[in-house]
Amino acid sequence: MAPLEAQESASPAPQPTIDQSTLTPRINVKGERELNFDWPMLKIGTGEYEEGPTGVTVFRFGRKVAGAVDVRGGAPGTVNSDFLNLGYQTPDLDAVVLSGGSWYGLESVTAVDSALKDDGERSGYWNNIGLSVGSIIYDFGDRRLNEIYPDKKLAQAAVRAAQPGLFPLGPHGAGSSAQTGGLFGCNAHSGQGGAFRQVGDVKIAAFTIVNALGVVVDRDGQVVACNKDSGWPEALKATDLVNGLPGSRKPGWTGVDKNGMRKNTTVSLVVTNVKMTPAELKRLAVQVHTSMARGIQPFSTAFDGDVLWAVSTAEVDPLEPGFASVDIATIAGEAMWDAILSSVPEQPFNQAVEGKPRKLSTADLKALAGEYRFSPIASLRISEEGGKLYGEATDRRAIFAIPAGEKRELVPDARGFVVPGRYPMRLTFASDGTLVINPGPWEQRAMRNASQGN
Amino acid sequence: MAPLEAQESASPAPQPTIDQSTLTPRINVKGERELNFDWPMLKIGTGEYEEGPTGVTVFRFGRKVAGAVDVRGGAPGTVNSDFLNLGYQTPDLDAVVLSGGSWYGLESVTAVDSALKDDGERSGYWNNIGLSVGSIIYDFGDRRLNEIYPDKKLAQAAVRAAQPGLFPLGPHGAGSSAQTGGLFGCNAHSGQGGAFRQVGDVKIAAFTIVNALGVVVDRDGQVVACNKDSGWPEALKATDLVNGLPGSRKPGWTGVDKNGMRKNTTVSLVVTNVKMTPAELKRLAVQVHTSMARGIQPFSTAFDGDVLWAVSTAEVDPLEPGFASVDIATIAGEAMWDAILSSVPEQPFNQAVEGKPRKLSTADLKALAGEYRFSPIASLRISEEGGKLYGEATDRRAIFAIPAGEKRELVPDARGFVVPGRYPMRLTFASDGTLVINPGPWEQRAMRNASQGN
Amino acid sequence: MAPLEAQESASPAPQPTIDQSTLTPRINVKGERELNFDWPMLKIGTGEYEEGPTGVTVFRFGRKVAGAVDVRGGAPGTVNSDFLNLGYQTPDLDAVVLSGGSWYGLESVTAVDSALKDDGERSGYWNNIGLSVGSIIYDFGDRRLNEIYPDKKLAQAAVRAAQPGLFPLGPHGAGSSAQTGGLFGCNAHSGQGGAFRQVGDVKIAAFTIVNALGVVVDRDGQVVACNKDSGWPEALKATDLVNGLPGSRKPGWTGVDKNGMRKNTTVSLVVTNVKMTPAELKRLAVQVHTSMARGIQPFSTAFDGDVLWAVSTAEVDPLEPGFASVDIATIAGEAMWDAILSSVPEQPFNQAVEGKPRKLSTADLKALAGEYRFSPIASLRISEEGGKLYGEATDRRAIFAIPAGEKRELVPDARGFVVPGRYPMRLTFASDGTLVINPGPWEQRAMRNASQGN
Amino acid sequence: MAPLEAQESASPAPQPTIDQSTLTPRINVKGERELNFDWPMLKIGTGEYEEGPTGVTVFRFGRKVAGAVDVRGGAPGTVNSDFLNLGYQTPDLDAVVLSGGSWYGLESVTAVDSALKDDGERSGYWNNIGLSVGSIIYDFGDRRLNEIYPDKKLAQAAVRAAQPGLFPLGPHGAGSSAQTGGLFGCNAHSGQGGAFRQVGDVKIAAFTIVNALGVVVDRDGQVVACNKDSGWPEALKATDLVNGLPGSRKPGWTGVDKNGMRKNTTVSLVVTNVKMTPAELKRLAVQVHTSMARGIQPFSTAFDGDVLWAVSTAEVDPLEPGFASVDIATIAGEAMWDAILSSVPEQPFNQAVEGKPRKLSTADLKALAGEYRFSPIASLRISEEGGKLYGEATDRRAIFAIPAGEKRELVPDARGFVVPGRYPMRLTFASDGTLVINPGPWEQRAMRNASQGN
Repeated sequence: MAPLEAQESASPAPQPTIDQSTLTPRINVKGERELNFDWPMLKIGTGEYEEGPTGVTVFRFGRKVAGAVDVRGGAPGTVNSDFLNLGYQTPDLDAVVLSGGSWYGLESVTAVDSALKDDGERSGYWNNIGLSVGSIIYDFGDRRLNEIYPDKKLAQAAVRAAQPGLFPLGPHGAGSSAQTGGLFGCNAHSGQGGAFRQVGDVKIAAFTIVNALGVVVDRDGQVVACNKDSGWPEALKATDLVNGLPGSRKPGWTGVDKNGMRKNTTVSLVVTNVKMTPAELKRLAVQVHTSMARGIQPFSTAFDGDVLWAVSTAEVDPLEPGFASVDIATIAGEAMWDAILSSVPEQPFNQAVEGKPRKLSTADLKALAGEYRFSPIASLRISEEGGKLYGEATDRRAIFAIPAGEKRELVPDARGFVVPGRYPMRLTFASDGTLVINPGPWEQRAMRNASQGN
Repeated sequence: MAPLEAQESASPAPQPTIDQSTLTPRINVKGERELNFDWPMLKIGTGEYEEGPTGVTVFRFGRKVAGAVDVRGGAPGTVNSDFLNLGYQTPDLDAVVLSGGSWYGLESVTAVDSALKDDGERSGYWNNIGLSVGSIIYDFGDRRLNEIYPDKKLAQAAVRAAQPGLFPLGPHGAGSSAQTGGLFGCNAHSGQGGAFRQVGDVKIAAFTIVNALGVVVDRDGQVVACNKDSGWPEALKATDLVNGLPGSRKPGWTGVDKNGMRKNTTVSLVVTNVKMTPAELKRLAVQVHTSMARGIQPFSTAFDGDVLWAVSTAEVDPLEPGFASVDIATIAGEAMWDAILSSVPEQPFNQAVEGKPRKLSTADLKALAGEYRFSPIASLRISEEGGKLYGEATDRRAIFAIPAGEKRELVPDARGFVVPGRYPMRLTFASDGTLVINPGPWEQRAMRNASQGN
Repeated sequence: MAPLEAQESASPAPQPTIDQSTLTPRINVKGERELNFDWPMLKIGTGEYEEGPTGVTVFRFGRKVAGAVDVRGGAPGTVNSDFLNLGYQTPDLDAVVLSGGSWYGLESVTAVDSALKDDGERSGYWNNIGLSVGSIIYDFGDRRLNEIYPDKKLAQAAVRAAQPGLFPLGPHGAGSSAQTGGLFGCNAHSGQGGAFRQVGDVKIAAFTIVNALGVVVDRDGQVVACNKDSGWPEALKATDLVNGLPGSRKPGWTGVDKNGMRKNTTVSLVVTNVKMTPAELKRLAVQVHTSMARGIQPFSTAFDGDVLWAVSTAEVDPLEPGFASVDIATIAGEAMWDAILSSVPEQPFNQAVEGKPRKLSTADLKALAGEYRFSPIASLRISEEGGKLYGEATDRRAIFAIPAGEKRELVPDARGFVVPGRYPMRLTFASDGTLVINPGPWEQRAMRNASQGN
Repeated sequence: MAPLEAQESASPAPQPTIDQSTLTPRINVKGERELNFDWPMLKIGTGEYEEGPTGVTVFRFGRKVAGAVDVRGGAPGTVNSDFLNLGYQTPDLDAVVLSGGSWYGLESVTAVDSALKDDGERSGYWNNIGLSVGSIIYDFGDRRLNEIYPDKKLAQAAVRAAQPGLFPLGPHGAGSSAQTGGLFGCNAHSGQGGAFRQVGDVKIAAFTIVNALGVVVDRDGQVVACNKDSGWPEALKATDLVNGLPGSRKPGWTGVDKNGMRKNTTVSLVVTNVKMTPAELKRLAVQVHTSMARGIQPFSTAFDGDVLWAVSTAEVDPLEPGFASVDIATIAGEAMWDAILSSVPEQPFNQAVEGKPRKLSTADLKALAGEYRFSPIASLRISEEGGKLYGEATDRRAIFAIPAGEKRELVPDARGFVVPGRYPMRLTFASDGTLVINPGPWEQRAMRNASQGN
């Protein structure tokens, strides 16, 4: 076999990036679960690049609406929050855009404005300019093996397909690669959540992309999703995790590292049909955002970049007797807790080896060997040695549990191969040279380098 | 009888206010419960006017320290928050002052600065000016029958008596007349809470004056203190109350009314000995303040004026390995929840009639009749009619459950008289003409007008 | 001649927008005047679509730098200002982008991030994400006859061509269609300005896109550029204009109308090589931004959306003795005044009829008649009547001084045609059917509808 | 003569502070110049302690009004700014208080609230609580020899004496010991300024306590007041001073030192009778505050703590046609420039020796010798040596130009003694043992220690 080095130098240099023009937007994908509600004034479009997976969720209103924002840091990514903070009394807002892709994903926000202009709905005339606001989550890093981000094409397709009454729950739209619980090494899969409440004429909808450093917590104080460390109890209260700090973060855990800022962020939206003054709408934003500290613990840390947008469609005015704006905000906070809980998807396959370890021949294993590239930034070298199969990351510090510069055994089981450990890692090889890690909603696909054989 | 009556009726209208120079500060009153901890750098003084009751809690540091603030509204009262927000890198702060008395109580904050100057600890030289910051709660209104507020005399006595290691819990200092749960008509007595945690060298203390529109909630989601409406279950979850909005607010409840802003506010302080940059300290303030939404539900409403101060004494630098500033903030948030829970005092006597109704003679009852004045703004007329005793508020809309312009029966029982209803209201008459409403920590005292007899 | 109606219905409906993919970026166009300076760490790229004209100015730094922002409203358009405000202590900023195109132009900001990623300079790894910030000016409305905005293609070309030491002054980059003085009806052409100062090792550069509702004022208080109303003196002091408010705004002036918000905005950048703490850098931003009220009067009105970014490249640390950070800020403010003054271009041709009115035959005039389209949103109908040439706007309220629904005479002179009035309006017809309004840097071009003949 | 040491040890230790209860408020002192205007809704009271001199200026409105604030730092001292920033829509404000005394002077602000309560105008009822806001200037340090600050007694006397239509200009109220120009060593005396404009029904008043690090500048760019360094030209432009930075700050100048923060601050108020939304009022504050950078250069530095309050009395609604809120703000900015200029008092006596140096006998000089105490913090030792009189500061680093630990000659002239130098310093001795430094509005008085004679 030719020396590996030569082979590598023969192959083209890794492209620094994927050409996103080759990607196909998937719009309003039907999720496993969805929220249905009746509110014509509020339309939602979701766009996804499943190669990420990453995506965008666009909220479009039936007319210019009033908006407010509560930015709580630590490391937010925002477009046009200042305009809302400086508070004209007029309704100016067209859309709220929540997106993956970290700061790159902010392209989704500006894209919606230009779509509205190109479609003739908005123009350059001073009182008809498109105004979208938006914010992003960090969904790169260890959680996926590429740097695809939601872009103009995706966001424009999403806003143009926006429809009322339907919101996919779980790993969709901006929440496609969301995770939670990194502070404790939970690294649970997460997603987007939504809830709707109607009391009399009052409508309230809450939406959130839960991608927090903290864990999702239910109304009994239980942690809802976590890849638990060995020895952790089945029923895990958030308060127990916190009480273990910093001790619950055992050596070797893959969660936050001391300098690991900006790996999280939860972005949210609350909408009501009640007409509100700018001051009331700002209060709604503050109170609801604050209330989220119940469903996500801890919330709004320095390593999150949390942002909540609040919108009033002003369809109900005045409030019916007995209602005060504080009631709206309190009910909305409760709806937001529902939304947080609804964001949690079914966690993937157990990481345990399934069934008896399969017995594979050396030839079978050798046939799988080769260099598998996931994207310009991630590649895995599979090799056989002594009748066992090994993986080794080659151009980034780790492919999930498989580090660079070190071989890690892939244990065969009934459905493929597993790398045992705290986090699920399953590999399946297809006959066409495709390697899939963690088949399912968050799967990562690689192709074996064609020039490599055996 | 001497012509006193004539003189008095000729005498001028009631003074609009009490002369506070006649009040005696009560300093560092030993409470029923207290928090003890070991931290020489942090000294605490509490001052109370039991005639209010109202008071002030002063936190004084062993040297100039770094401070940050998170003001979350709706209607805060603050001194020198702007200075902290604009963020020099130098430690400038001397003291944090939490006070009752609404905006009038801010006099307590400025008083601490002048005490430090008068004592020669601070001066007018630019790098040695006394800098206190502080905020207040609203503790007037229906909850007490006077408008006494914590003033310069009280605050200066408190700061001069500040001592390390001891913090009274419950209705003391700034929390003397705190209440919670007005949103649901709970109107429970509240107070000041504190908690201390030490992990390795790291010290964290959390203090709070819980005077929220919302209710205090424990880690199982249960409401900790509430004067429940008839028919409410014994075990009451916060989420159930919220789900009843606005319906849980029955007709006649005494909680928030639509225009009833500014009746609440929770003010808090978190202190750590870890050295922090201004950005980190601000994040500590934001994260801990946000976390309080778990222990108080709802939190930071438009009708609160919540403020949290954060202080670093910079005794530990750098943090020990494994710790990040987010850990400090997360632990501090948990300590703050403990502090919130510790603020709740034993709620007073049951409002029910105790034992069999006493049988009192008409003469006995007549002997109690007269005009009882609590303060220049509150007076109660007691009269006998048909063998029953009645009360009627005379110069404000109500004395607790007794309205103006309407007689309400006082039912005699084993220990005095009771006005039955959702809220405790007990009256005891002493032979010297004193009337005490709700004897105990929150008692309100009146003297019978001397000119009135028979 | 065929019936106009039929022709119109035969021609396609006006496109709502121009397809910007057909436009060609013009990068680093050599201006009439430019600022030259020596500072390798600071690179500048300008991109322009001359069809607008509109453009973008990108400032790229040699490494991650520290940034701060002062947003002063009224109606700003910003990307990622929140991140800078929340103040980590680490340098994270890659580029500052100033752009035309109102909120649509924010696409320029997000475009720079993705260019850096695509070029392999930045990635998705948490400590290497591209971070651009930016803000925009409003340059649509009455000032140009199309809605072209600076887009991803333009901004990416500009950042990739960024070079040190050179900054074009006047109507270039983001300042291509800037104007000033609308408050008084001045509507003077404006542009981008820059200035550089070096004191010892300290370098300070100031840049600004001057598009203010107010007027530019020199150090003697004189207005630098204004289309003066009839009867206004040659030497015009800003204070005289203000003293005339609201009277100086005569009936019929084209400046601000009561509802005419968001038609302006000045966006700026100050850069120093001095290392600064976040607090110092914020102070630099605040002080310099405030100082601009001298060179632009009034400044930061409700109808502007002013934003100033401040950057420290941290090349000089510590400051040499005798220097304090306040000196840096004061010098920078003076540099910014220079920058403001340098933004003013030579104002165009006099509006007066030049030479004797030309005498043109009716046939000559008829040959010019027809429908001239500038863009999907602007079209001008030229007709001959009684030996005179007339214009009439057809699908927007006005083509500069020519209103819709009303014919306005075009007066022939030595160089073409003129519409006399306060503001320059000159028309030249070319033999190929092209109509040019105001030939020169701000010219607007139309083609005669092919189907129309004579 | 008994050994000085013994005498000193016999005398009591210097009191750390002056007992302010011995001071007599001087209320609404008639100034040399005053602003008169017609506006019943706006009342002004000034209080002064001439022993400082220092004082307070209270603005009281005829009813609850709407307020906004623009805090621009660097080191502000404020009360209740947060409440205004969080923006209810209701008018809640009672008074704006501007005060000397640095953070100690904030006692003046809280004092006004309690005065209103004690006078029965405000109470503890939630919708009738007194709300004063306010901010302070730094007027200690080298500028006066005591640490007297405006206190509760002074502020309450001032608010109770508040009257419409009259505002003393120059060194009065909060401006009693204001100075400007420290950045360039100008150290000019300053004061409070005011201006009033009426356009149609619209009333606008602007008030400011000018105590800036920068210099006051007129509409031609000239510096209005400065103790010029030797060699500086008579006509001094602000731009020339700035261009000399840091060189214009010669060795030995007494202006800002590198660590000399918090020595300045300009606090201001703009009032209009036009009804404004919270957003408009905030814009008024921002625009007018920004505009002050013309009249004070530089403005809003890190070493200032500038704050501007804006108030609407809501007497005019709606605005008459032709007026927009931006006009109000622009006119108000111009009024504020007038106010700044009006703050500058006649600068004191020339520092030059007047007439021929007087010839005094050694006995005459010896008779003046002794220890003169200005306050617990400042004392001057006068001694005779070789037929000349000398001064030496004894318990602080300097008494104006006379340092501690070093004798400085007092040159006799026609009117007393002079210490030549950049800054005026004249000493006059009275037969009763009184020493007056700089007789006039800013004079500092000391008494000779009784135990000392010879």
